[in-house]
Amino acid sequence: MSPLKVALIGLGTVGSGVAKLLLEQPNRIARRAGRPIEIVRVVVRDLTKPREFTLPEGILTDRVQSIVEDDGIDVALQLIGGIEPAREMMFALLESGKDVVTANKALLCEHGHELFSRARELGRSISFEAAVGGGIPIVAAVGQSMTANQLTAIEAILNGTSNFILTEMLASGRSYDDVLTQTQELGYAEDDPSLDVDGTDTAQKLVILVDLAFGTKVPLSSFSIQGIDTLELADLLYADELGYTVKLLGVVKLIERWLEMHVRPTLVRHERPLAKVDGAFNMIALDGDAVGRTWYSGSGAGQMPTASAIVADLIDVAVGRAALTFPRLNIWREQPSLPVLPADEIANRYYLRFNVEDRPHVLADIADILGRNDISIASVIQHEAAASQHGIGAGDKTARSIVPLVIMTHRTTAGRLKIAETQLDKLSTLRPPRISMPVAE
Amino acid sequence: MSPLKVALIGLGTVGSGVAKLLLEQPNRIARRAGRPIEIVRVVVRDLTKPREFTLPEGILTDRVQSIVEDDGIDVALQLIGGIEPAREMMFALLESGKDVVTANKALLCEHGHELFSRARELGRSISFEAAVGGGIPIVAAVGQSMTANQLTAIEAILNGTSNFILTEMLASGRSYDDVLTQTQELGYAEDDPSLDVDGTDTAQKLVILVDLAFGTKVPLSSFSIQGIDTLELADLLYADELGYTVKLLGVVKLIERWLEMHVRPTLVRHERPLAKVDGAFNMIALDGDAVGRTWYSGSGAGQMPTASAIVADLIDVAVGRAALTFPRLNIWREQPSLPVLPADEIANRYYLRFNVEDRPHVLADIADILGRNDISIASVIQHEAAASQHGIGAGDKTARSIVPLVIMTHRTTAGRLKIAETQLDKLSTLRPPRISMPVAE
Repeated sequence: MSPLKVALIGLGTVGSGVAKLLLEQPNRIARRAGRPIEIVRVVVRDLTKPREFTLPEGILTDRVQSIVEDDGIDVALQLIGGIEPAREMMFALLESGKDVVTANKALLCEHGHELFSRARELGRSISFEAAVGGGIPIVAAVGQSMTANQLTAIEAILNGTSNFILTEMLASGRSYDDVLTQTQELGYAEDDPSLDVDGTDTAQKLVILVDLAFGTKVPLSSFSIQGIDTLELADLLYADELGYTVKLLGVVKLIERWLEMHVRPTLVRHERPLAKVDGAFNMIALDGDAVGRTWYSGSGAGQMPTASAIVADLIDVAVGRAALTFPRLNIWREQPSLPVLPADEIANRYYLRFNVEDRPHVLADIADILGRNDISIASVIQHEAAASQHGIGAGDKTARSIVPLVIMTHRTTAGRLKIAETQLDKLSTLRPPRISMPVAE
Repeated sequence: MSPLKVALIGLGTVGSGVAKLLLEQPNRIARRAGRPIEIVRVVVRDLTKPREFTLPEGILTDRVQSIVEDDGIDVALQLIGGIEPAREMMFALLESGKDVVTANKALLCEHGHELFSRARELGRSISFEAAVGGGIPIVAAVGQSMTANQLTAIEAILNGTSNFILTEMLASGRSYDDVLTQTQELGYAEDDPSLDVDGTDTAQKLVILVDLAFGTKVPLSSFSIQGIDTLELADLLYADELGYTVKLLGVVKLIERWLEMHVRPTLVRHERPLAKVDGAFNMIALDGDAVGRTWYSGSGAGQMPTASAIVADLIDVAVGRAALTFPRLNIWREQPSLPVLPADEIANRYYLRFNVEDRPHVLADIADILGRNDISIASVIQHEAAASQHGIGAGDKTARSIVPLVIMTHRTTAGRLKIAETQLDKLSTLRPPRISMPVAE
């Protein structure tokens, strides 16, 4: 059978991994694809930059247009990040008759709707297994394997950097800033890690999964997103003491005809599988009405795990599966969407931490405000000398008089909690920061 | 688009689950499949048996031949177990031009080769997601999502009954027999649970996965299979004390050009994901040379999880994916097979438990025999009064003089251990049973 001709756009970490797989394992890949897969063009920004492997003579170019114009190319691997020029490039590639494989989650989250519509009109496919969960085949699971089910919930750890930082903080007893610096030195975090640690990356991936699972396009602005960048070591330690691990969790639940949806640091009971995902690994738990709960875990990022997903997508294009699957993905279609449950109506148990002056009536004042807002208290931790034990207020002159107070509430809504918090913030005995985290059901 | 016409053969637990999904969710399934899926025939043994749901008028029959002869039927869901008449029936269905979806692992393990060859010759497909891991899409993961990788290892908990029993024994401190009886009363174990608890069921599923992952047909007789039916509560407790959970693990490793392969109760370190799979859940861990390790978990059996996998297969047939995927599955092909590493050459650390007379020199004698066979000891547990603590010898008149001795070895081969065990069995101070279990790396 004639080879499938592929252009690689972008030769960064992931692009290099894909090139290595295709160049070093041509027989394996041809066997699985039923035909040879040949890289005929590689687009880079800088033609002179030294590479860690040898590309076939004459295939490097710095002109994307040369791919667009080449009718001999079947598939474009679009491996550059960000919105522009990636978006325009993708339209041009589709218009020129190419199937596209991409890992660009930001682009799909933002412009998936128009890209998918156009691809369908043109009879082309967009494959994007690598955009969510790296090497974990979660797009295939949701888009193909779970098709007999109505999915009813997704709970997921989708950002390896955040999970690595949380794991390290707890294991080493160090602060967020310390661990972040080390993570950057190890190369696990970007120089600007903000999209990873502030929850945006998790939210973008969740938007893609939600569209696959529920056929609903949810804008990032329509649900609560909070990262791990406001957490202190103390919170991880108190949660641990209470029997929970703190994870940056993306959560979607189908509640009647509403989607409850949020990305937040969340307390997960120690014995649950999601609590046990350590380091840079990801995990996605799916609830289906027939299958019950299934879990998928593995490396959510990194050169070769991501390359594994991209090459699997490429093989799907070669075999012809992508052309069958893509039009049937219930994704980014014009259809009545499920509305997102207003953030204030989301009900959860909550972990609350306050820094309070160590004097009479403080707990009574807090309990009174919570009670007046119908929030009942499930448990309280207030240790003697806890301030120094968990590192709070260390070095602070007033440390002796400020103590942490941790309260676990029964189920309440985010709206009620918000009102209570506004009232609490008026208490002169409370010092910032005030932390609240939901508890996973 | 015209409906896909389906015949259901077998209306037991799983067949009823499939019928329910297809009859209760026609719109959902038509949307995912791109066309309606219609049950036109249901074959049962007893036409008069009361059913828990209403089938469309006139579709029940007790004659499989009526399916074979009906050219209007596109797909047969072959949901009866055992080898015959399932095997003959499957050939007849394929010959009559039908695609087949099945959950029959015993049949595929035993006769997959001839069935798959014939299906390929006839241009038909056999889909079997439900045969391994129930609702977990592990066949799709190995056969499609991991195609960029050379898989290098599979470690799997594939029998829910065994895992439920092991979990319950440890949680409740009860004996194997007690828990088995309760499990049968709950309906989680068959009246004759022997294929579940003796490791055969796990081994059959592993044979199917090995063929998918390594293109090698391994007969059940060519690798070691041991079940949980010889384990005592004491072993679970000692393992726990040493930091391990005992799991019935199916293990395959690619070691150069050899396959190491076995099914045995195995010690798994507490912190590893496989150790944390409780109750009737299954988990499969796959190592790929690009992706690293990925994990898949969920319900490995049960009516609706299995039905979920079967209906997903059916949708794959409807969409046309099965016709593309099946010929490319590197399974049951005529090709040079990877040889199975002789059992004696498999290297592991081992957990050994002996019941010994409580008198001088016993440990020295055992250590001497192990040492002469080049097996070095990593750790020893011998508690005072341990006999009653872990329930060994309770009620036995000689209980006071027999104590358990637990030894963890460093890495050695099964062959060396076997020789040592022959010599150990000659010691007059040892009483049966003598237990040995490998430790997962």
